[in-house]
This record gives sequence, C-alpha cells and structure tokens, in this order.
Amino acid sequence: MKKDIIKNCSDRISKYIHKTPVLTSSAINNIAKAEVFFKCENFQRAGSYKIRGATNAILQLADEQKFKGVVTHSSGNFAQALSLAGKSVGAKAYIVMPDNAPSVKREAVYGYNGEVIECESTIEAREQTAKKVEDNTGATFIHPSNNTNVIIGQGTATFELLSDYPELDIIITPIGGGGLIAGACLAVQELNPNCKIIGAEPFEVDDAYRSLLSGKIETNTTTHTIADGLRTHLGDKNFPIIKEHVSEIIRVTEDEIINAMRLVWERMKIIIEPSSAVAVAAVLKSSNKFEGKQIGVIISGGNVDLSALPF
Amino acid sequence: MKKDIIKNCSDRISKYIHKTPVLTSSAINNIAKAEVFFKCENFQRAGSYKIRGATNAILQLADEQKFKGVVTHSSGNFAQALSLAGKSVGAKAYIVMPDNAPSVKREAVYGYNGEVIECESTIEAREQTAKKVEDNTGATFIHPSNNTNVIIGQGTATFELLSDYPELDIIITPIGGGGLIAGACLAVQELNPNCKIIGAEPFEVDDAYRSLLSGKIETNTTTHTIADGLRTHLGDKNFPIIKEHVSEIIRVTEDEIINAMRLVWERMKIIIEPSSAVAVAAVLKSSNKFEGKQIGVIISGGNVDLSALPF
Repeated sequence: MKKDIIKNCSDRISKYIHKTPVLTSSAINNIAKAEVFFKCENFQRAGSYKIRGATNAILQLADEQKFKGVVTHSSGNFAQALSLAGKSVGAKAYIVMPDNAPSVKREAVYGYNGEVIECESTIEAREQTAKKVEDNTGATFIHPSNNTNVIIGQGTATFELLSDYPELDIIITPIGGGGLIAGACLAVQELNPNCKIIGAEPFEVDDAYRSLLSGKIETNTTTHTIADGLRTHLGDKNFPIIKEHVSEIIRVTEDEIINAMRLVWERMKIIIEPSSAVAVAAVLKSSNKFEGKQIGVIISGGNVDLSALPF
Repeated sequence: MKKDIIKNCSDRISKYIHKTPVLTSSAINNIAKAEVFFKCENFQRAGSYKIRGATNAILQLADEQKFKGVVTHSSGNFAQALSLAGKSVGAKAYIVMPDNAPSVKREAVYGYNGEVIECESTIEAREQTAKKVEDNTGATFIHPSNNTNVIIGQGTATFELLSDYPELDIIITPIGGGGLIAGACLAVQELNPNCKIIGAEPFEVDDAYRSLLSGKIETNTTTHTIADGLRTHLGDKNFPIIKEHVSEIIRVTEDEIINAMRLVWERMKIIIEPSSAVAVAAVLKSSNKFEGKQIGVIISGGNVDLSALPF
C-alpha cells in the first residue's frame, strides 16, 4: 500500500464533503463503561459516509470518463451518494434500481440530478441492466463497496476520527458490503496501527462473521434484518484487507439494534439509521470487555423512513 | 434593567450547562429563502433550554435557601431541568406532578435525584400542593417561566446565539409560558437592539397572540396542540417585557408543526420536539416576508416520546 493514501484522498475530497462532528454522551459512556466517540456521518452530505467513496471514485476518473458518466446499482445510500457526488464534480450518474424500490428513494436520486434506470428486483437483472447502461453510454461502473477507490474514500471517515482522537484503542464500524470497514483498516494502518478494528453485524446477516471463520466470502440466504444497509456481502477487493486487519466481528440481535437506536435518539437527540445502531449495540453489549477503553464508533448514516419506525 | 445582566448570568451558569451548537441546513435555507441559524438547545443538558433558567434561579438563592431546596410544579421539561440543576448546584428539588403524568416523566426526575410529589391533575391542586411543600420543607418556589431569574437564565440561549452571529435580523422562539422569549428580548437589548424578536405559537393555543392584541394576559380554554410545552399562558413578570419588545407573533397549524418537525428530522438528522417545530414552521410559512434575512431560531428542546410520534 502506498504511503499516505488515505491522507491524500482526504485532501482530494475535502471540498466536496462535510468534516462531520464527533459527539459524545455521558449517559452512553456510563452504560458502556467506556469513553465512546461517535463519528457522525449521519450529518454527512446525502446523509451517509457513502459520499466519500463515491466522490473519490469519480475524481479518480479521466476527464473523458467523467464526461461519459458513472453507473451503479443501489437502492440505498450509495444511490444518493453517487448522484450527489456526480452533481458536485460534474459527472452524470446513472442509478440502476429495482422497480419495487420506494418512490422516496427514486426521488432522492432525482433531487441530486441522477438518472434512475428501473429493473426487476433480482441481482441478475441489476447487474445486467448496469452492464447495458455501461455499453450504451460509456459510463464507468462504480461498485458501492467492492471498488478500491471507494474503499479508500470511505477510509477518510476513520482518518478524520483518528486525526482528532489519535489515542483510540478500538474503532467499531458496521459491516455490510465491506467498504467502510476496509477503509477503516487502511486509515488505522496510516495513523495508529495499534488501534484495533472491530466489525459489527446483525446475527440475521452474519456473512462477514462466517467469512472470517471460513476464510472465504460467505453470503446470506435470508436477510431479515432492520439494518437494510448491511444485507449485502463482502467482495474480493475488500475481503483481503478485512481478513488481515479486522480482529473481531461482534454480532447483535434485532432487539439489540432497535434498543441501541432508540437509546441514541433519546439521549443524544440525533437520528441514526439501523445500520449505525448495529455498531452502537456492539459497544453496549461488550461493556465488560471494553471497560475503560476509548472507542470510536462510525455512525454510518441517518437515512431513516420515519413512516416505518420500529418503535 | 441593569447593564450586562444576561452576560453576567451567562458567565454564572456556564459551568453547569452546555454551550450548544448552532447548526444550519442548506435544504432548509432553500425552502425558507433565508439564512436560518438553529440554536440547538435540544442538545442541552436534560434536553431543553430550561436548565439555564433553573440553574440561574437556584444559584441566586442564599446558602440557607439552597439547603432547604426548591419546589416547582411541572410535568414537562422544567421538572427535569430543576431536578438536574438542583443536583448540579447542591439543592434538593421537589417536583409537584399530576398523578396522571406518564411514568417516564417521573423516572426522569428520579434519575436526577429530584423528589416527585403527586397531586390531582388540576391547576388548583398543583398550586396548593406546591404551597404545602413550601410550608412543610421551607423550599423556595421557582415558577417555570414567570420568575425573573428564570427569565434571565433563559435569555442566555439567545445571548450565545447573538454572540456567535451578531448580525441576525430576526430571532424567532416558541411562546409557551413566556420565559424563553422574554429572556430573548433582554438578550437582544444587550447585544443588538436592531434584531427583531418574533414569537411562534400554535393556532390552538394562541393566548400570547391574543394577549398582545388585547394588552392583557389571555388564557386558553382548550389546549389541543401537539406542542405540549406551549399549552400554558404568560405571566405578570414576562408579559411586560414581551409587550415592549416582541414585534409579532406568527401562528401555525398542527399540520405545519408536524411537517416542520419531520423536515428537520429528515434533513438535519436531529430530534426536535413539537414545541421547537412551531418556531421552524413559522419561518417556513413566512418565506416571502423573510426573504434574504438572517434568522436565528431557538430549538427549545428534543424531549419527545418516541412511542407516540405523529408520523
């Protein structure tokens, strides 16, 4: 790995993203028996850390590629992030989205000047449709998590956190597609290799936990979790990094996720999405193990459907 | 009024309260056609600005009075605030609360070492019970809004906002009992008398609007509003200040309150309570009138029952 790769990325994308605040809560510290530092990517542009990787991936394209645009398949935070990054940097974004995605998600993409291309709700249809857009437009495909420039971009969230709090013992992030935590691993290598990286995952989609055990990328047969951002599995670009640097994956139940989400909303008065609550729940259930530690938690996003809350 | 009275209070209470952040949102600025600066008292200790006035009122007591404690009647934010202020400063707090108040409210008071005294749910029973506690314990009665030291304390929220943004054209606060807005009037007199003070009130409890018209304190016969902090009426200590300095009161519908609350939750990812959304709604519905202005909005608190949301 090249020297300062995350630092250079952080400089590159800085004018397109927010430097998000780090918040603490004495109420939560008391429960966790630790000092917890929340890196609030819920306050990030487009409501999640995904804008970091999306922006970096687009900025790394040649001008001719930017002109032809970018394409991805996502109905989640990466759809909005790539659209907004494209708008900021000046690249058309094509977003392949299943035709049963909620209209609010389509509208969010339109709001950032992205173009939605609908397809059937199967992984095959999504991939084929994205391929078709690539062929027809010359747009460059950007995977939401299994793309090296995306991974490096996501690492800047941890880079900022560790720059502000260099003495952290542990950083905990949720694991979905693996982009966020792989980026965290790279950032820790650059700034403080003694800091442990721990992943947090719902029991219901514990593919990353099983992947670390088996040594190969495992998938989920069902995805019955409220943490909609974490239903995907790892990829060949991020898994080697995760395998080398992630020391542990803590699994949490659906009740633990909902309770952690509620606790943060009630005590910190900030809106975090279920995927972020997974990381908070992992801290709360490990209070004996982490007693007295300084723990950084990446609050990955705050995009929640207020019409469908679990409480 | 003495010189620097709010400034001195701000210094006095500073170690017992948070200096809350001021947030902005480009999405909301676009809708409001103005620059809006949100003073986030939802992040304040005990979840609302009320700790400011409660702390100041207790700090102004003689040691012997502090020793005997303080008493108030409230089932809302002032109950928690006076309990926590008492705990911080070292004064017992007795909180008279109707016996039908939700148990979560009693527990919040207990959590701050306050003592709850239950009474029937009528204003007479509340006042009589508080009087009985005064007589039995020697505790000093502190009214939630109609007390000069409380009013001065609440003024420090606006004082901090204007210290950070001295050029504001307008400050908007919700009006309930009148303590917050009267304090805002005093702060503006000290820092920038050209800044207008505007109140925001639900149509359903527009007693302050009617009081400014009639020139005397009006009350509400019904209180069918979601903004539970604003169901009370003005008092003889704050009404003269309000009458002199408040230039206008904007009334909003229940739908406007709920929509504003939802907009702030969704776009800013922060939890604000319905009473605060009243002030936001007043800004949003006045976009033609306020075009291009710099507007400060006091986000009064973030204490919401997540089990009973309006969306």
